[in-house]
Order: sequence, then structure tokens, then C-alpha cells
Amino acid sequence: MSTAYTRRYVLAARPATTTEPLEDGVLRYEDHAPVPALRDGQVSVKVKWLSLDVATRGWMNDVRNYLPPAPLGEAMRALGAGVVTESRYPGLAAGDRVSGLLGWQEDAVVEGSTLRKVPDGVPLQAALHVLGISGQTAWLGLHDIGQPQPGETVVVTAAAGAVGSLAVQLAVAAGARVVGVAGTPEKCDLVRSLGAVGCVNYRSQDVEAAIAELASDRVDVVFDNVGGAVLDALLPHLAVNARVVLCGAVSRYDRGGPVPLRNWFHLLPNRVRMEGFIYMDHADRFDEIEADLLPRVRAGELRCQEHVIDGLKAAPEGIQVLLNGSNNGKVLVKLCD
Amino acid sequence: MSTAYTRRYVLAARPATTTEPLEDGVLRYEDHAPVPALRDGQVSVKVKWLSLDVATRGWMNDVRNYLPPAPLGEAMRALGAGVVTESRYPGLAAGDRVSGLLGWQEDAVVEGSTLRKVPDGVPLQAALHVLGISGQTAWLGLHDIGQPQPGETVVVTAAAGAVGSLAVQLAVAAGARVVGVAGTPEKCDLVRSLGAVGCVNYRSQDVEAAIAELASDRVDVVFDNVGGAVLDALLPHLAVNARVVLCGAVSRYDRGGPVPLRNWFHLLPNRVRMEGFIYMDHADRFDEIEADLLPRVRAGELRCQEHVIDGLKAAPEGIQVLLNGSNNGKVLVKLCD
Repeated sequence: MSTAYTRRYVLAARPATTTEPLEDGVLRYEDHAPVPALRDGQVSVKVKWLSLDVATRGWMNDVRNYLPPAPLGEAMRALGAGVVTESRYPGLAAGDRVSGLLGWQEDAVVEGSTLRKVPDGVPLQAALHVLGISGQTAWLGLHDIGQPQPGETVVVTAAAGAVGSLAVQLAVAAGARVVGVAGTPEKCDLVRSLGAVGCVNYRSQDVEAAIAELASDRVDVVFDNVGGAVLDALLPHLAVNARVVLCGAVSRYDRGGPVPLRNWFHLLPNRVRMEGFIYMDHADRFDEIEADLLPRVRAGELRCQEHVIDGLKAAPEGIQVLLNGSNNGKVLVKLCD
Repeated sequence: MSTAYTRRYVLAARPATTTEPLEDGVLRYEDHAPVPALRDGQVSVKVKWLSLDVATRGWMNDVRNYLPPAPLGEAMRALGAGVVTESRYPGLAAGDRVSGLLGWQEDAVVEGSTLRKVPDGVPLQAALHVLGISGQTAWLGLHDIGQPQPGETVVVTAAAGAVGSLAVQLAVAAGARVVGVAGTPEKCDLVRSLGAVGCVNYRSQDVEAAIAELASDRVDVVFDNVGGAVLDALLPHLAVNARVVLCGAVSRYDRGGPVPLRNWFHLLPNRVRMEGFIYMDHADRFDEIEADLLPRVRAGELRCQEHVIDGLKAAPEGIQVLLNGSNNGKVLVKLCD
């Protein structure tokens, strides 16, 4: 059997910091990397889309971040979606559309048991946002922890992002009054178009004052994708028995260090529950959640704006776009055919 | 009917700060205050014991603190225990031992429905600690939120205090490995005598280093009575799926302002739940909890050290003792007969 070759980015070295742009030498582009031969239980996948997430940047460093660091010398770890080209795994056949940890490469050889089939009737890349990490994350955080009741007020931060925009739509569908927080007027327009009653631009507005007005000073649920100063500004406006969903802390990554929470003590008199979660812990529930999301995706009731990076070679630029918040929606890499 | 008189402390003015020793004029001592006539539904109580709590100081200020501020011009609000002297409430008779919000006065007239009977076979003041606010608080925080499993590690702060020492004993009884945090060698000795495997003196030791050693860097439950710097030092040592019970924030009161939490971001990757609670919300469960605690109190398995202030007149000193942490155990005022 002749050796096949692929293009890929290998994680060649750890970045010096967790927050700065990637130095030369961290990622090494290879345009003639051998594809390993298929063993029993494995499948070959032609990768079509990669998901870029804040966690992707975290995995490059040698720090614990709910998964071990991405291994050096291998294709950089990432979720992806593609089409099976060859299978030695009974549950999958050539032509099947799948998603999973495919890595920054055009051809992946992975254990078939780690992949999920992408349902019919949706674009392949939906498996990376509304039916994948973003949708599962928004659903788990909002419904398991946030538990918004009809008429309650839900504040979503980074509300124009992939997870945030889906959390907004799910909360609106649950009958909540939703207020978004985002960083540009365009993002705020998007958030309002998803059904939010208002959206605070944290770069130009006083978040505390704006929330006090928009949320009538009574926030029942915070779905937080940011951490730091914006989260801190929301805490004084929590209602009794409020829930704070800790879903992400982008601000930790791009500011060089953790931002302290000064207003945490509001949690006590208001009997607030603040809880972190990681969507991967709940893999046993993905089918159930997908079954809830799928008809709404097919009906066009749940949408996710895509910020598409063209071609594997440009993937590192996507990481920077994500960290500086200049993306509009879910950051995806579209691989060339 | 002739008018009766009593001795009491009236809350005469709001303190200027929430943290400093009380100024003259905040509390006014009256040695000849008229006792109101009994109306239907009310009982007269000869007050024997008062409970001093961190919340007592908070109620003096005009700030929301899970109850409205204590009203000006009335006996200062406090939990107390005493004996019914006259009753126009069907559920109580003269001679009954009761507890409830009796206030800083020797004779109280209150609605009978707001009082609880003190069970036989325990000292009257037990209704103010192990069977009262301290025991109910420790039980609710530990079992409802902390939920320690056998073999898990539980860290209790202010572990020699009334709530803390009971949380230590309840956690030990639940099969947990318990580590205390307290502020003097004597307090640490007390905590170890209650079954803790170790106790960190936060005034003389590096809390982070000591916890890393004593808790093998894996804390499953924090029962926090302090807030601020000590809580912050514990957060980096939380285990995955740890629970942080926010029970009190003494440090907020005596430092002039909230201490920021710098390490809050550890909550997210470790999927931690941090939750505040107020024992008063759960009055419908006090009977159930008392039924669990009572046989253990009668058997001497649960104990609470008492720090007794002699006489109503000295009650303000008790508040200061509580806030500067120089008390050993539950601060009670024993009223003169």
C-alpha cells in the first residue's frame, strides 16, 4: 500500500505566554506529512471544517485546562467535521458525514468510536456550532444551570459569539426576557435581531448603569462567556436566588492575567448559585440535546453566524481573531478541496 | 392593669460605617421601658439568652442584608431564648421554653406563631446554637450544598466558631476528611479535638501551602464562613466538581470593604459550584433538621463552645468581640435573673 500525504499544522513548541499572539515556531506547517495506515477500529476522514475555540489557544500551553495540553509533534488538536473516506470501524462507512477531534490537518486517521455522525438536512459545519460544541454548551449551561423561567431576566455576555448567540435564542425560546452584552454596535444589532430586548455595548456604555435600566436591576440568570470586569459589573444586580453560569473566561486569556471579582460577596445575601461546567463532561447527553435542537435548526429557528477563515494555512490568524474579539460569530476554518 | 417595665437596648441611630466599632448614640440603654400590653396571639417572654451574630451588626446599618435593617426606636433585633410568662396564643403556655426574635430586652412581647419550642433534655441556650441558627446553618450548608461523600476532603473556615465547629463535626460524622482554618493555636487545638485531621492557622501559616499539604491539593468541599483572602487561597486547590458553600463573610465587615476574589477563575475548569444560602429561607425544614440533630445533641455527640457575655448591658461588647474574632465559640448574652 502506497503512503498517502496530507497538509497539516504540527504543534512544534509551547508558546511563551498564554495570552500573546503566537510566536514563530509554535506551529509548523507541513505540506507533505505522511498519513498513518488505517488500523482496526479507525477511519480516515477528509476534513472539511475546523472549529476554532478559545480553548484551542489554551491547549497549546503546558497548563491544565480541563484537557491535557495538546501533545507536541502532532497535528494541533481541534474539533472538525468531514467525510469518511475509508473505514475499518463497523459503525461508519465511506461517505458518512462525521465530527470529532480531527485536528489541524486535511486528512485525519482517528478511532471511529470518537466520532459523531452529522444528521441529514443540516450543513456539515452545523456539527461544529449549533449542533456541536456551541449548541451543546449553550443548552447545557442555560438549561442545566441557568434554568430560566418564563418572565425571568437573563443576561448573556459575549452575546454575539457562537455560544452567546445560541444562549440568547434558547433563553428567548424559554420565555425569558433577554439582555445581551457585546462589544460593538453591529454585534448589539445582531443580538437584538435574535430576540433580546436590549444589548449593552460594554466598550461604550457603563455596564452597571445600563443593566440596572434594561434588567430593572433584577437579573435572574447570567450566562457568562467572558469573566472579569463585565461579570463583576453584573453581580450587584442579581436577584435573590439568581444563577450565574460560568461558561467561559475570554478576558482571562487576552489580558495577561485573571481579573479579580470585587463584587462576589453579593452572592451570599442573594443566595446565588455560580457554577462552572465543561460541555465535554456531558457527552452521554449529546443525543438527547441534539434531538431537542435538530428540529429547531432544520426549521431555521436557531441560527449561528459563521466567521469563516479560508484554508488550513490561515488557521493561526483565526485564533488571534477569536482572542481579540474581532470575529462575528463562530470562527471556522474552511479547508480547501 | 398596671404597666410593666423592662430593661432594653433601643437602636437609636444608624452607625456611620458597617465595619467600625459602634459610636455612642447608636444603641440607647433604657432601664425603665414600658412593656406593651398583650394582645390576642401574643405571648410575654422572660428573655434568658440572646444570640449575637455577625448579621446582628449588619442589621444596624441601613443596608439590605437579607432582612430589612433593624427598625430604629425599637429593641435591637436579635434571636433569643426564654420562658413564656403569659400567653394569649393557643400553642403556648406559661412556663414553655421558647426561642425566636426576642430582641435586646429582658421582657419581650411577640407573636406566638413566630416562636419555636425548645425541646426537653437540652439547655435553653442550645436553641441558639446547636439546635438553632448555628446548627441549622451548618446542617443546611453542609448537607444541601456541600454534600460531602465519605472520604472526600472538606475544608471549614472559621472552624472554631459556632457554625464552623458544628460544620466540622457534621462533616466528620458524614465520613469526610476535615481540615479546619482558624486564627489562633488554641482555636486550632479545639478544631482538631472535634475530629479534624488538621487545622491551618491563617494568621501564622501560608494557607495555600498548608492546604496543599493537608488536603493533598484536592479540596472537594469548602464550607466558608469568612470570605476574602482565606477563601481566595483555597480556590486554587479545589477538586473537579468541588462545592463551595458561602455561609458568611466576616472579613467583609471588619476590613472596611469587600476583598476581591482573584482566583475565582478556577471555578470554571474545575466545574465548581459556589453557592450562597441563608438559613432563614428554609424555616419549613427546621423540624426535620432538628429531628436529625436532637438525639446527637442529647448523646453529647455534637457540642458547641459558648462564649458568654454577662448581662444585657454588656451586649454591645459582644458584637465587637465577634467582629474582631476574639471569641471562642458561640457568642451569647446571658441575661440576669
